[in-house]
Amino acid sequence: MKFTAIPAAHLVVAQCKAQGIRQIVISPGSRNAPLILGFTSDPYFDCFSVVDERSAGFFAMGLAQQSGLPAALVCTSGSALLNYYPAVAEAYYSRIPLLVLSADRPPYKIDIGDGQTIRQEGVFEKHIGFQAQIHQDATHVTQKLRWIMDPEDTSRIIPAQDLPKGEGLKELQKAIETANYSLINQALGVAKNQLLPVHLNIPFEEPLYDLTSVPPVSNESSVKASSTGEFDIAGNETVVEWDVLQARWNASPRIMILAGAMPPDSLSDEIQGQLAADQAVLVLTETLSNLNAPEFFPSIDSIIAPIELKDSGSGDRELLQPDLLITMGGMIVSKKIKQYLRRFRPSAHWHVDPFHANDTFYTQPKHIKLSPQAFFEELFHRNNTELPKAAAKVDAVPAYRTYWDGVKDHYRKLRSAYLQTIPFSDFKAFALLSEALPEQATIQLANSSTVRYAQLFDRKPGHRVFGNRGTSGIEGSTSTAVGAAINAPTPTVCISGDLSFFYDINGLWNKYLPPDFKMVVLNNGGGGIFRILPGFKEGEQFEQYFETTHGTDVAAVCALHGLKYHLASDEQGLVSALKTFFNSSQTPQLLEIRTPRVENNKILLAYFDFLS
Amino acid sequence: MKFTAIPAAHLVVAQCKAQGIRQIVISPGSRNAPLILGFTSDPYFDCFSVVDERSAGFFAMGLAQQSGLPAALVCTSGSALLNYYPAVAEAYYSRIPLLVLSADRPPYKIDIGDGQTIRQEGVFEKHIGFQAQIHQDATHVTQKLRWIMDPEDTSRIIPAQDLPKGEGLKELQKAIETANYSLINQALGVAKNQLLPVHLNIPFEEPLYDLTSVPPVSNESSVKASSTGEFDIAGNETVVEWDVLQARWNASPRIMILAGAMPPDSLSDEIQGQLAADQAVLVLTETLSNLNAPEFFPSIDSIIAPIELKDSGSGDRELLQPDLLITMGGMIVSKKIKQYLRRFRPSAHWHVDPFHANDTFYTQPKHIKLSPQAFFEELFHRNNTELPKAAAKVDAVPAYRTYWDGVKDHYRKLRSAYLQTIPFSDFKAFALLSEALPEQATIQLANSSTVRYAQLFDRKPGHRVFGNRGTSGIEGSTSTAVGAAINAPTPTVCISGDLSFFYDINGLWNKYLPPDFKMVVLNNGGGGIFRILPGFKEGEQFEQYFETTHGTDVAAVCALHGLKYHLASDEQGLVSALKTFFNSSQTPQLLEIRTPRVENNKILLAYFDFLS
Repeated sequence: MKFTAIPAAHLVVAQCKAQGIRQIVISPGSRNAPLILGFTSDPYFDCFSVVDERSAGFFAMGLAQQSGLPAALVCTSGSALLNYYPAVAEAYYSRIPLLVLSADRPPYKIDIGDGQTIRQEGVFEKHIGFQAQIHQDATHVTQKLRWIMDPEDTSRIIPAQDLPKGEGLKELQKAIETANYSLINQALGVAKNQLLPVHLNIPFEEPLYDLTSVPPVSNESSVKASSTGEFDIAGNETVVEWDVLQARWNASPRIMILAGAMPPDSLSDEIQGQLAADQAVLVLTETLSNLNAPEFFPSIDSIIAPIELKDSGSGDRELLQPDLLITMGGMIVSKKIKQYLRRFRPSAHWHVDPFHANDTFYTQPKHIKLSPQAFFEELFHRNNTELPKAAAKVDAVPAYRTYWDGVKDHYRKLRSAYLQTIPFSDFKAFALLSEALPEQATIQLANSSTVRYAQLFDRKPGHRVFGNRGTSGIEGSTSTAVGAAINAPTPTVCISGDLSFFYDINGLWNKYLPPDFKMVVLNNGGGGIFRILPGFKEGEQFEQYFETTHGTDVAAVCALHGLKYHLASDEQGLVSALKTFFNSSQTPQLLEIRTPRVENNKILLAYFDFLS
Repeated sequence: MKFTAIPAAHLVVAQCKAQGIRQIVISPGSRNAPLILGFTSDPYFDCFSVVDERSAGFFAMGLAQQSGLPAALVCTSGSALLNYYPAVAEAYYSRIPLLVLSADRPPYKIDIGDGQTIRQEGVFEKHIGFQAQIHQDATHVTQKLRWIMDPEDTSRIIPAQDLPKGEGLKELQKAIETANYSLINQALGVAKNQLLPVHLNIPFEEPLYDLTSVPPVSNESSVKASSTGEFDIAGNETVVEWDVLQARWNASPRIMILAGAMPPDSLSDEIQGQLAADQAVLVLTETLSNLNAPEFFPSIDSIIAPIELKDSGSGDRELLQPDLLITMGGMIVSKKIKQYLRRFRPSAHWHVDPFHANDTFYTQPKHIKLSPQAFFEELFHRNNTELPKAAAKVDAVPAYRTYWDGVKDHYRKLRSAYLQTIPFSDFKAFALLSEALPEQATIQLANSSTVRYAQLFDRKPGHRVFGNRGTSGIEGSTSTAVGAAINAPTPTVCISGDLSFFYDINGLWNKYLPPDFKMVVLNNGGGGIFRILPGFKEGEQFEQYFETTHGTDVAAVCALHGLKYHLASDEQGLVSALKTFFNSSQTPQLLEIRTPRVENNKILLAYFDFLS
């Protein structure tokens, strides 16, 4: 096997291998040649070539979203790095580990008018788990050095002629490698333990393409010693006042559990069953929570919308208000539940998450630093063995669950009835699509109307559902889906609106779409979300600058990127297309569903009216 | 006319109008509705709708590149803003004024788990001329406020109930408007006077879509007073030691003037004529310098390559070395001249630029803070009236210019001869293309092999030539060209390689391509630059991760975005296509030139051998 001749590059590659970072997404360049050569020369690594760095960032995020392990990104110097920023921010808020490795010119080449240079160091400062500048080597196998950064003070540059000679130089190089080793492992530690994106900026001197047949690192032993084995999220220590929590739980007749975006299987079937059995507990599940029990309450908006619309005298608003709110998972998609809980605040709010608690409802939640699984396991274990339920609670309980079970049955019936009355539209298309999705699938939902519509319909238990809700941007949904499809255990269906589809067209510009990749584009001729949001909807001003109508052709994108194209532009056509679209295939397929542009918002709002 | 009901938004819109910022590039969103409504309701503004913010950033940069005035960018909250970063960095290093206006949620909605929020304030910190957070209004016409930022200390949030009432509230609002007025004008001042990108982050509270029929700003008078008229770059005061400069100029028998990227007409014909007439002066012009005199030396690499290849004994290297180097304009494309001047440093180096001097050649240049036109005008004026040339200079002069005139004639003859010997290739295609370009045209050169090849051939005097050489990225060349085409005085020809073309495919996703827009894509099936750069060229590892071969179809992109497609895949086909391609047209046209992938680097290197 060959190795890059540059010690700093080799150290990064070797540490990735030692710590099990196997998937590397590479964008072309020359300054990053030492990293490209290092990774692609070792068959341990699975390397992917993605030209557009914006797409590459989301592609890597998709890989990591499925594997739970950091995926690495490798780019050249200059503005290339900046194109990762949307994915880095999304990964930061969605807690998906990414290892960004940017090649750079040496510091003395920055801001002197050399090509492809920007101020790369720390450029993601506001949205990164860890970032560092890797020290430049003092000795290379082949390089002629001009200057190096002082390893003690990186703002200082040491001219090559001032470096020590002989043994002194070797010692200096060892010190540099030890410092780099530490930085690389700090970065990997934050990525793996805290599930955050991290950034290492790595300056390289020319020549960049040299290879050696022995590893160029002088203290190879430290590299070997670094394979520290498993990292453990549960290592987040926290003092949990179990007695207080337990007392509160047992005294609360109305416990609302609100589950935001969570990876599949975040709660075991056993825990889900115990929550489902407790009549004091209402589990509201966002589609992205991937929770399954039939006793839970999906389609949150179908519950909240009617009580929003009813006058306050009906008492429904108050009937939903929990004593105790327990939240878990990431961002909440449903605006309605956010607005509701900000107004009808619970007496107590706990957020269960190993890392972070947002104050989404201005309730100053108690942060319980455990995984939801660990938390409920311990809580139920203690309850089973120790405390009986408070008597007050036992009396009050049935009213809570029973009432809202009735509401759930009611809206499901009304939804079916409503679907019979409406013309072909986004709403109807989603209903048909939801039903037709295969039983086992990995579903990727684009922003923003797609993920909102999806929440109105039932998720099948075999669905693993994902969406970029950290920043809720539209720039990387397709790229994420393609990266994720590589690691997903079930075939991927990516559902997108037309604006997000065209925006991330480069998500299809790579060679890695699995043959069973299925893309569904709901094309209503513009940004459907802007018709749904409050605000005026009429006239050229709205259509041009908000909705952004376009006549761009989905079929032409399929021709460009080699997807087999299908079209449905009315109900009959859609029903017919859906009969075979999800069959297993030898080539990626795309189904365009064309819906009328102007009526969708009215049909959606009328649905909420219909429910109440 | 209608106005947005939100004072802070109105103040931004009104100040743009007062200061002559007329072109506004809008990406769709809801949080930015107050700005969209403000700008699009006033017919004073030319508004453009571009969905992909990355493309929108470069599109705006193209507008400003041609007009010299800031173009404004308007985006919604969240990750949208991050997609501007590549264009912001390019504008920063290319000194092109951009006014980035990002809508935001109010600070109390950041980092609490609300949708589409990131830490927007100051996100471009490392590459921005000025950035500020606009203060939230204390009174709105229609808004129900919950909190506002403390105008004295923006890290502090004031709950609405703690705001003063009645006159006190009015006073507070006036103070906020005065503070905002000042921030907006500081931003506009930096953009207009220093030609830099600036960023205002503007938090808005709901409702966002309300309009009023009277301007909602309480101190409208200050808005009117702000129309301060012309800004003047020459206002950059500098103490120029004219005597010293003049003495040095007159004593130097070998003056090299190296012109980097400059807007057309940066030097008057008169000044160019005077420089052309001085036999002590060698003016080396990069293609992007837009300088014209036939006595100047374009195709710098054709001069340097042979002396690089000759052994040092020939003396040619020393013959070129200047006593005095004067540089002007932006980044230098030619690596060869950079390497040459770093090795054969001049005794003195002046950089003439109103703003900034890079130490590109490690010569610690004297920075003369004047426009090149002002500098040479003054220098020649003084010389004409005051000092005679030093006698030593008069004797030494002819050797310098005469010798290199001979070299120029020589390489031109050899270039013609070489072209007769080579097969169809990037080199030959560029030669044919350069000759066939219309006499009057605005040429946009993509990175990186395109701009490098273009330097090898002569630019016609009627060509206005541009390229994104601030960061030399490939992510926005087409978008820049389309934006620029809107303001350019002559029809635009955008020349791109295949990787940059596909990378910036969304540059064509807008409704503003002029009918006479001409795009030429040199498709050699991958990143040609990577074959030219040093490093190995063989095998799957090179093709997949460096060159990034692809079979993506340029014609399909034309079908997608409505350009008329032409193909040339051999010399005869190209000659034939070029006969009519640049004729005036009713619809944008694209010419794909397919060249063989693998021989291009050898043909280019053999050219330099052939010259020596």
